[in-house]
Amino acid sequence: MDKEKLIKNLRTIPNFPIQGILFYDVTTLLQNPETLKIVSDSLYEQFKDQGITKVVGIESRGFIMGALLAERLGAGFVPIRKPGKLPAETIEESYNKEYGKDTIQMHKGVIGKEDIVLLHDDLLATGGTMLAAIKLVKQEMPKKIATSFIIELKELGGRELIEEAEAEVKSLLQF
Amino acid sequence: MDKEKLIKNLRTIPNFPIQGILFYDVTTLLQNPETLKIVSDSLYEQFKDQGITKVVGIESRGFIMGALLAERLGAGFVPIRKPGKLPAETIEESYNKEYGKDTIQMHKGVIGKEDIVLLHDDLLATGGTMLAAIKLVKQEMPKKIATSFIIELKELGGRELIEEAEAEVKSLLQF
Repeated sequence: MDKEKLIKNLRTIPNFPIQGILFYDVTTLLQNPETLKIVSDSLYEQFKDQGITKVVGIESRGFIMGALLAERLGAGFVPIRKPGKLPAETIEESYNKEYGKDTIQMHKGVIGKEDIVLLHDDLLATGGTMLAAIKLVKQEMPKKIATSFIIELKELGGRELIEEAEAEVKSLLQF
Repeated sequence: MDKEKLIKNLRTIPNFPIQGILFYDVTTLLQNPETLKIVSDSLYEQFKDQGITKVVGIESRGFIMGALLAERLGAGFVPIRKPGKLPAETIEESYNKEYGKDTIQMHKGVIGKEDIVLLHDDLLATGGTMLAAIKLVKQEMPKKIATSFIIELKELGGRELIEEAEAEVKSLLQF
């Protein structure tokens, strides 16, 4: 992987969405065909030999590379969405965020006991959303769960939280 | 394209999101590796010879196949998002929906005068959102704009609206 090219093309934006946060903006990696290809190839390389059968993307930035990764791995793509967005019967998981509670949903019965699931999102910070996504997917009792991120902010403890939930963590860039 | 296989795997849900609407649910196409591959190949085939340089996906279901299509076409991926979601300077377009006004945003300066742009969303109904997306992209004066959908609901007039705006329309399944 050409890590330096990715880092050079990644944009950081101070004080977004709120004062004091340095936002890592992956859109600059995605809009460039060369770095989009590097991101795609690198995510694929990390999981190509793991027998992944379903890639689950978390709304909405996790949809971007999630489906691409699913197709390349020969897996199916499953969206996790905010409440009321999925049209058929769902299962759900609620979790606490900095300001109040949040809920995520997934269609019921799409993940099965034989599935090896890869959960994807663009960025790992505190890991709260991903932990809720893991709990949500675990309701369907798949064989194994792994997680994939483009960017990992190491000091926020997300990796530790996810590994405690017995899911593997892989990311392309660590800060 | 194996149209019959896609149609067989597509789910329709009556009265979602509101009474009287028959919802075409593409999640059943995406969760199946075989139909995901057919959708990916078929969208790619429709645009592979058009010199597309940027694929623009509309939040959030347009993100799913948008980035996949961009990568396969050797193009960049650009997201159109709801207000306040994009971290850098944006341009925007407002439009009327059934109940009130809506606004969409795109990062400024990402599309240029030399770009051939493919706008992607999962479903074409009345075409209101896609027309706003075309106007938004046109602010950057690209060379050409085309549009891509998985599903087209023909009786709602979306195609006519988009063609009046001088953008080509292609869809995989028409109902």
